Amino acid sequence: MAKIIAVNAGSSSLKFQLFEMDDESVITSGVIERIGLEDSIFTIKFNGQKDVRTLPIPTHKEAVHLLLDTLLEKNIVSSLEDIKGVGHRVVQGGSYFKESAIIDDDVVSKIDELKSLAPLHNPAHLTGYYAFKEAIPNAGAVAVFDTAFHQTLEPRCYIYPIPYKFYTDYKVRKYGAHGTSHYYVSQKVIEKLGNPEHSKIIVAHLGAGGSLTAVKDGKSINTSMGFTPLAGIMMGTRSGDLDPSIIDYLIEQVGMDMKDVIHMLNKESGLLGVSGVSSDFRDVLNAANEGNERAKLAIDIFFRRVIAYIGRYFIALGGCDAIAFTAGIGENSAYARKEILSLVSEALGIVVDDDANENGEGERLISAPESKIKVYVIPTNEELVIARDTKRLLNL
Amino acid sequence: MAKIIAVNAGSSSLKFQLFEMDDESVITSGVIERIGLEDSIFTIKFNGQKDVRTLPIPTHKEAVHLLLDTLLEKNIVSSLEDIKGVGHRVVQGGSYFKESAIIDDDVVSKIDELKSLAPLHNPAHLTGYYAFKEAIPNAGAVAVFDTAFHQTLEPRCYIYPIPYKFYTDYKVRKYGAHGTSHYYVSQKVIEKLGNPEHSKIIVAHLGAGGSLTAVKDGKSINTSMGFTPLAGIMMGTRSGDLDPSIIDYLIEQVGMDMKDVIHMLNKESGLLGVSGVSSDFRDVLNAANEGNERAKLAIDIFFRRVIAYIGRYFIALGGCDAIAFTAGIGENSAYARKEILSLVSEALGIVVDDDANENGEGERLISAPESKIKVYVIPTNEELVIARDTKRLLNL
Repeated sequence: MAKIIAVNAGSSSLKFQLFEMDDESVITSGVIERIGLEDSIFTIKFNGQKDVRTLPIPTHKEAVHLLLDTLLEKNIVSSLEDIKGVGHRVVQGGSYFKESAIIDDDVVSKIDELKSLAPLHNPAHLTGYYAFKEAIPNAGAVAVFDTAFHQTLEPRCYIYPIPYKFYTDYKVRKYGAHGTSHYYVSQKVIEKLGNPEHSKIIVAHLGAGGSLTAVKDGKSINTSMGFTPLAGIMMGTRSGDLDPSIIDYLIEQVGMDMKDVIHMLNKESGLLGVSGVSSDFRDVLNAANEGNERAKLAIDIFFRRVIAYIGRYFIALGGCDAIAFTAGIGENSAYARKEILSLVSEALGIVVDDDANENGEGERLISAPESKIKVYVIPTNEELVIARDTKRLLNL
Repeated sequence: MAKIIAVNAGSSSLKFQLFEMDDESVITSGVIERIGLEDSIFTIKFNGQKDVRTLPIPTHKEAVHLLLDTLLEKNIVSSLEDIKGVGHRVVQGGSYFKESAIIDDDVVSKIDELKSLAPLHNPAHLTGYYAFKEAIPNAGAVAVFDTAFHQTLEPRCYIYPIPYKFYTDYKVRKYGAHGTSHYYVSQKVIEKLGNPEHSKIIVAHLGAGGSLTAVKDGKSINTSMGFTPLAGIMMGTRSGDLDPSIIDYLIEQVGMDMKDVIHMLNKESGLLGVSGVSSDFRDVLNAANEGNERAKLAIDIFFRRVIAYIGRYFIALGGCDAIAFTAGIGENSAYARKEILSLVSEALGIVVDDDANENGEGERLISAPESKIKVYVIPTNEELVIARDTKRLLNL
């Protein structure tokens, strides 16, 4: 039996999901947070139970050992040799990786080289990779890149309208993100459409981070995140696209420095910045429903920014067969889906099946038969894509 | 006979157009450039002739005197008393001005206060105002704001997804620009549609600077320029909207400073930056036709950025009755119109009348009868709007 663990290593966290690949079932999953602090938190779910422990975990190496020891203690695996592969999520694959790759020295050095484009993420991914490699050296390791699915963009969509040398000499271009999710969801939609030769799909991945992708015939042709995941729609704490002069104004006239500004745009903007309430859509919606005007405004701006990209991609695709909602807000907020769809329905001829939208569960069609565009909810599953790619590349 | 002069005073230039308001005819027009240098250039058109002189013009005051003396010398006016009103174009009216205003002390102080939002333009406009006020004190003066037409935007369209205090304390919001042009062109289209009660129009003002506006029932509901005219589509030398992280990367990783970056984004980006050839669409197109790949890419990106806004505004308007092209590229490049329309035709059901597009002249319909959306070319005329507003407010 081939077991594969999908890993997402952040700078102070490590998320994991262990799959039994024979039936693609999840055996266990969890997260280790606050690595490096005295009060690290280890959460693991197994057999319907959730175990949470607080203890000091100084480094990723100790985190991986704690995780593996726990797998043995709880008899989740009888031997560490059962884990045949480790699939690592990697945020930034640059222009190097059009698909997942077995991690070797060359891949390591490329992930390392790309750290200037993802200074918080890529070094953390390598830390996670080394920790697993040391602990279970016989397991193969595969990198699955968040950017790979968007490598099919054409230059006219990924080159920015700034001097060309910033592309050639400094790698400034659109890379996008959430590629694994957009790939998984768009493939699901293509299946549901009956695997047609041609298809035009807009995927709206709406979570704390959010992005939309235009998928034509199964390939990403444009996506809302850009050089970094700060671009595109408004998010929980991120601004999305902006008039660049605002940054100049904040620095030259208001007296902020670049570090303040970029922190503000990444961590204090979006739903949080406008509402002043929370970065969580549910909290902001509750506040709006209680009459908080700024919370209402934040939600309105969020919807406007989402529909702007639906409009762009409707044009870029030359029409649209299906729109799919995924991720936290996209999967769980019937209200958000309903409002977003009502804002585009007049232009696009969408008719929502309210019962399916509000009362249905999981993967489903939520448009009515007479709708000109089909609308789906597709719960995303990036970990499964990571596990599948790991199995495939390692021939397990 | 009431004569009105429409004036656009820049930091080192002064454009003018003198109208006979009885029939709205242009009596004379021209520009004084390089004010403050030894080789200032004075160009004036009258009776089908163009007169160009190079001479030192130290200040706007001398420029206005030279202009007025010339009007008398050439018998364009028999007395300066004939000029009853001066209409001044003002780039930034902030949230103060929803329409044009007779310039009094309060208006002057507001235009002055707004200079932090338009540091190059508003002070120059006031310099022009003072020069005319001194030279022809009996003529009334009216300010016509580039931002006024966009004051009908709702907060959800003009508030940025950044902390709310930047709006309340620092006036950071979308103001838009080219408002006088968008107003003039959309009004023309509404007339052509037969003055319906409801109308949904997208105006594409495509020149060296460019912006698109969604006009619903005659009111601007969204526009592509933002806090400043740097935002929105790619332009001759401007980048338009950008992933804000690019600025952080250029400063923190590449080592540029904010002044370099904002200069680059305003003056070295856009068509010029990508093509490396020119900021002028015609030059870039010629280079593309001769096989220059970067010139071709620049044009492709430009078209993509324009159609993205057509898509956004198609959604924002809930459909679209008409699209209108105006300004340098919009009025004069049949190729640009044809390509832009062909990129949206599949999604929007637009059919172009090639003969009208390529061989027609001036104000005209360029879509075929079966087109789902009417498409017009409307030469813009901001000066006429300025003159009309001046006449109306001064009761001339």
